[in-house]
Amino acid sequence: MTEIETKQQESLQDRFDQIQTLLRQYSKEKTQAKEEQIPFHPDYTELQKKLEELHSADIADLLEALPLDERLLLWQCVKSDRDGDILLEVSDAVRESLLADMDDHEIIAAAKELDTDELADLAPELSNDVLQELISSLDTQDREQLQSALSYEEDQVGALMDFEILSIRDDVTLEVVLRYLRRFKEFPDHTDKIFVVDSASVLKGVLPIKQLLLNDPDILVSDVMSDDPVVFNPDNDAYEAAQAFERYDLISAPVVDKNNKLIGRLTIDEMVDLIREETETEMLNMAGLREDEDIFASVWRSLRNRWAWLAINLITAFIASRVIGLFDGTIEKLVALAALMPIVAGIGGNSGNQTITMIVRAMALDQITTANTFRLLRKELSVSFINGIVWGSVIGVVAYYLYGSWSLGIVMTLAMTLNLLLSALMGVIIPMAMVKFGRDPAIGSSVMITAITDSGGFFIFLGLATLFMGFGILPATS
Amino acid sequence: MTEIETKQQESLQDRFDQIQTLLRQYSKEKTQAKEEQIPFHPDYTELQKKLEELHSADIADLLEALPLDERLLLWQCVKSDRDGDILLEVSDAVRESLLADMDDHEIIAAAKELDTDELADLAPELSNDVLQELISSLDTQDREQLQSALSYEEDQVGALMDFEILSIRDDVTLEVVLRYLRRFKEFPDHTDKIFVVDSASVLKGVLPIKQLLLNDPDILVSDVMSDDPVVFNPDNDAYEAAQAFERYDLISAPVVDKNNKLIGRLTIDEMVDLIREETETEMLNMAGLREDEDIFASVWRSLRNRWAWLAINLITAFIASRVIGLFDGTIEKLVALAALMPIVAGIGGNSGNQTITMIVRAMALDQITTANTFRLLRKELSVSFINGIVWGSVIGVVAYYLYGSWSLGIVMTLAMTLNLLLSALMGVIIPMAMVKFGRDPAIGSSVMITAITDSGGFFIFLGLATLFMGFGILPATS
Repeated sequence: MTEIETKQQESLQDRFDQIQTLLRQYSKEKTQAKEEQIPFHPDYTELQKKLEELHSADIADLLEALPLDERLLLWQCVKSDRDGDILLEVSDAVRESLLADMDDHEIIAAAKELDTDELADLAPELSNDVLQELISSLDTQDREQLQSALSYEEDQVGALMDFEILSIRDDVTLEVVLRYLRRFKEFPDHTDKIFVVDSASVLKGVLPIKQLLLNDPDILVSDVMSDDPVVFNPDNDAYEAAQAFERYDLISAPVVDKNNKLIGRLTIDEMVDLIREETETEMLNMAGLREDEDIFASVWRSLRNRWAWLAINLITAFIASRVIGLFDGTIEKLVALAALMPIVAGIGGNSGNQTITMIVRAMALDQITTANTFRLLRKELSVSFINGIVWGSVIGVVAYYLYGSWSLGIVMTLAMTLNLLLSALMGVIIPMAMVKFGRDPAIGSSVMITAITDSGGFFIFLGLATLFMGFGILPATS
Repeated sequence: MTEIETKQQESLQDRFDQIQTLLRQYSKEKTQAKEEQIPFHPDYTELQKKLEELHSADIADLLEALPLDERLLLWQCVKSDRDGDILLEVSDAVRESLLADMDDHEIIAAAKELDTDELADLAPELSNDVLQELISSLDTQDREQLQSALSYEEDQVGALMDFEILSIRDDVTLEVVLRYLRRFKEFPDHTDKIFVVDSASVLKGVLPIKQLLLNDPDILVSDVMSDDPVVFNPDNDAYEAAQAFERYDLISAPVVDKNNKLIGRLTIDEMVDLIREETETEMLNMAGLREDEDIFASVWRSLRNRWAWLAINLITAFIASRVIGLFDGTIEKLVALAALMPIVAGIGGNSGNQTITMIVRAMALDQITTANTFRLLRKELSVSFINGIVWGSVIGVVAYYLYGSWSLGIVMTLAMTLNLLLSALMGVIIPMAMVKFGRDPAIGSSVMITAITDSGGFFIFLGLATLFMGFGILPATS
């Protein structure tokens, strides 16, 4: 049995290691042959045998973890009839690198192995020529399905549904259903229910397989079917559908059009992928990465992925710098301020990131409503106020010991408290404002909150110090 | 039908809004009655009727989004026979607040509605008295199952498996299986396969329901069962099991002991929850939040959750401040340095966070091996080098225009490049070192990388400036 226990788990890792060792060896031989200008005719049989033992999902994982040259070497050794499956499993970035290495003929051969809904997943990355040739090779029904799937946005149910529908009428007995099912060679994956439709394909309910097995064969479908199933429309938001799958523990669900006609099916496997992608994308977005980046993406690709937010950060850092510039007279008189100011800014940034991360996550789970915003804000402000007083006092005392000025310590405590309050306020308001303007609250939230707590922190701290100096409370030289 | 389309989706949101309005009204009346010292006997019938129409998972969501007083009001109106189900659906933090409001008698009544594996989920949060009373009320088999479930760590398969096993022998025909199944009133949730065991309960294979339905009833189980299923051991890592579910598209899977004896079952619903929790926890941990925090957690609880990392951040910020202190002579001579230094530190922090987020995510997906570390590091260093040269030059030119010193611009460019290289190096090394020492690479990674890029950035920039001043290249006054 394929045990996922320690021993067997190691053996999968072992197989991965063996394959990687082989790949490095081939790669080295190839380079050497090139240098010595001798022809290179490697024998890939061993590698190919090892690959055949692996599940497509495992090969996809292996491809993700390889640098480009070894990845393409491995890709050449994969049997062509598995190309399609593997292309579906890898991430967008890796898929692009693999497709770039295939000629049109190979891509078309791989794509022909796929169902129409899988083909639709691949379609955006295929060249127009390839896509046209593929479409012309499909029969009318498949072509319509493909065009339907392509007509929806990536984040709509219509783009994720499949067309493998098993349907029955409600006026037959379970015995008839059982006999009908035995005529099939295979069922659609994840069949936990059979769809019940009328003669016009309008959905009347679902017959859970469970009911089919538990009940007497003489009973009618209409007596045991569930006539209140969770159904989706093709233009529903896919992420909301995934949440419904999670919430109601669904395995598969029917997709119907406006007239309640059954047109497709959603399954849990697509939804699990979506849930993982959504939370991951959120994490990457918060850090200012535009999209999923394969770890061996080219340097150029990585640069493009990261530049936008770095550039924005550069502008915000420059603004913070100008805020400091406003107070250069003050700093000249008391250099200690230059050393202390990053503490105020830094703690504010950390605290603001804690708040904004919590809010962004709560928003993804639909826990935040206009009704509870005020209470939420009050709680976050309370937390920040206590943090500011406590940690601000700690650092205030330290500042006193270091620079021998009580008033400098008090300025420090005040500034910390005010900046933490600012960070709480903005940590709640920024994501809410972004949602109001129809934007994703996760995107670059970390960069933005840091920008505000930096500039704000410098302004509050240096401003207070200038004020105190004006009153002669702070010493003019350190 | 329960459509998740716009219209119906609104209606769920509408129902939520109506309930929240009712709750606020009751809450107000209660406060008023208290102030006027008149007895408060509210009629909760309307609220209770609305709640009965909701799925337990939806009530759980509603509880998550409510402030404490309204949450407890709602909780009192939930029918007691649903308490157990709802307690299982809510997050740990909310569950704690609900349990705190229940007396032992109520908790025991709620817990008795649950299966042993569900009871085990709840057990860590119950008082010893309650737990003992519950255990003594169980029959021997249930008690053994509960104790078995409690003997595993939260992140082991043993803690997540359930004990609802449907098993058959392999020497019977499918017809016999079909008749056997009809004797049940209900199947375990997510039954997509029946386990095939011998007389000593040793697992011999699984019979997918699909095979049961597709094949002729006269065929023997042994002819169509799969004898190479994915199986788990109770001490397997739960997150790895979840990855296997995702990878191999499983709905349910058997759990066996060392002797291959069937002892339990894992199902996709638990795994989906785990996948979501794992990625979310990673995001929260990176930002320096210790654990999942319910948005209306008490201020005190929030403080405890955030203090650890704020305190660490305070120390790192203090170190950064001392680094600046080393150069106060230099800053005194050229105050412009104080204004420019946060730019160097800030960009380094942003870039380091981009790198570390990508690495932490790749590690969670097992994409990083010792074999590819070097190439990964080289790629990250290249990206940072280009970013440093490009953005460093931009800001160098700006510094020249602002302060009229070419050499200050060059110091700026050099320092930015070096700090970005440092951020790339540390962004790769920190998570790897943490994994080496058996720690979770996500925890506080953002705080740590920022600490290094802050102190490092100040040291590099001010150090270079001091050096340039020593050579008389930088002007001594701004």
